[in-house]
Amino acid sequence: MNLVIIEPPELDANNIVTLQDSRAAHLANVLRVAPGSTVRIGLLEGPLGTGTVTAVSDGRVTLRCAWNADTPPGPRVDLLLALPRPKVMRRLWAQLAALGVGRIILTNAARVERNYFDTHVLDQSVYRPLLIEGLQQARDTRLPDVAVHRQFRPLIEDEVPVRYGDAVRLVADPSGSLEVTEALAGASGQRVLLAVGPEGGWNDFERGLFDRHGFRGVTMGARTLRVDTACIALLALVHHGLREP
Amino acid sequence: MNLVIIEPPELDANNIVTLQDSRAAHLANVLRVAPGSTVRIGLLEGPLGTGTVTAVSDGRVTLRCAWNADTPPGPRVDLLLALPRPKVMRRLWAQLAALGVGRIILTNAARVERNYFDTHVLDQSVYRPLLIEGLQQARDTRLPDVAVHRQFRPLIEDEVPVRYGDAVRLVADPSGSLEVTEALAGASGQRVLLAVGPEGGWNDFERGLFDRHGFRGVTMGARTLRVDTACIALLALVHHGLREP
Repeated sequence: MNLVIIEPPELDANNIVTLQDSRAAHLANVLRVAPGSTVRIGLLEGPLGTGTVTAVSDGRVTLRCAWNADTPPGPRVDLLLALPRPKVMRRLWAQLAALGVGRIILTNAARVERNYFDTHVLDQSVYRPLLIEGLQQARDTRLPDVAVHRQFRPLIEDEVPVRYGDAVRLVADPSGSLEVTEALAGASGQRVLLAVGPEGGWNDFERGLFDRHGFRGVTMGARTLRVDTACIALLALVHHGLREP
Repeated sequence: MNLVIIEPPELDANNIVTLQDSRAAHLANVLRVAPGSTVRIGLLEGPLGTGTVTAVSDGRVTLRCAWNADTPPGPRVDLLLALPRPKVMRRLWAQLAALGVGRIILTNAARVERNYFDTHVLDQSVYRPLLIEGLQQARDTRLPDVAVHRQFRPLIEDEVPVRYGDAVRLVADPSGSLEVTEALAGASGQRVLLAVGPEGGWNDFERGLFDRHGFRGVTMGARTLRVDTACIALLALVHHGLREP
């Protein structure tokens, strides 16, 4: 934990917070804080700052919070992901938040098993703590939005054109001819929507729909990666491609 | 499984192989092959090719192998990794092989717990099948070398200069000022050795040793990633930086 995320309702009117969950345990047992210690803190969706420990007792840690640094900029990339199997999705939540994604759109696809949508990995009570874990790892305060679309076609035909009219739209595809950085050359200020398919790939109908809706195929070369590895590798390349020179 | 890896001793003199392990189960139950079906095959450390199914019975699948494609080029990057905790290392083996790494050098560091070296995740009988799983995912035949160094200093002072005299040496460090692609800008044909530290980072002594032995600090920006996420993201950037334009 490189940053302690504090949620706005946890703060009292004097910017004091008393933690008594895993954050308190980490501060007390791993970082071994004592009154007077300072720790990096972040207000969820808000600024970074410094917490000064005022009390440690009985598994509780009290911090006086000073919000003396900026709110991190929101990531410019959103991920449209064919829902992977629950075990993989569970592992991905924190990693996606750590890499930096504005919105995670999970969708059905021909090669996604329908029962994947019924698992508790899609319950907010499961994924929200994992996303926050990723933010605490990466020292970010911007919680990704999550949207679940059980129907692929209306997502691409109706939702994407409205929400992503101006965005650079990319779909990862082993047959793509473009590298991510090439596809992003010239994307000054635009958002990026990156689509990543299921383990067996998109089918022809889905590819056609992406194509007709302005998604350009991007590839990482001849190697076919597992979905979770591919998401991480592609997001690293997108962030690299978007970085100011 | 996008490629069936066959090991040279499994082949008979007529290039026939009978599989009866998880590969056979995958071919029979997932790909549902029948006599006459063809599947992509690769000879470990050798060429790619096509296998024609000649028999399927009792959990056994027999293939006639034609090695009609090139041997994939060996990856140009080696990874020097402070040994992560066993659970993380277990997950990484297949992903590293899939991304493409010539050699995986696992080392001790001040912030590595000594008992990590005693786990069976470092037994060849455990990691070799995981590496091959990664190759089968990525359609590669080049098995990464694995080396385990319990002593960091002799590795950097004695082994690295001999083996990596001509290589571009990089160490991932949040305080680094260089991006991976910048660091690789003039690396025409050279090997790359990428060092990735433990969860808590390298200590000052280790940083100093890297610095004195020609490792340049590379960063991915302000975000601190978990070791496994960082390895994948950095290897994606190295492969991107090495790709011919």
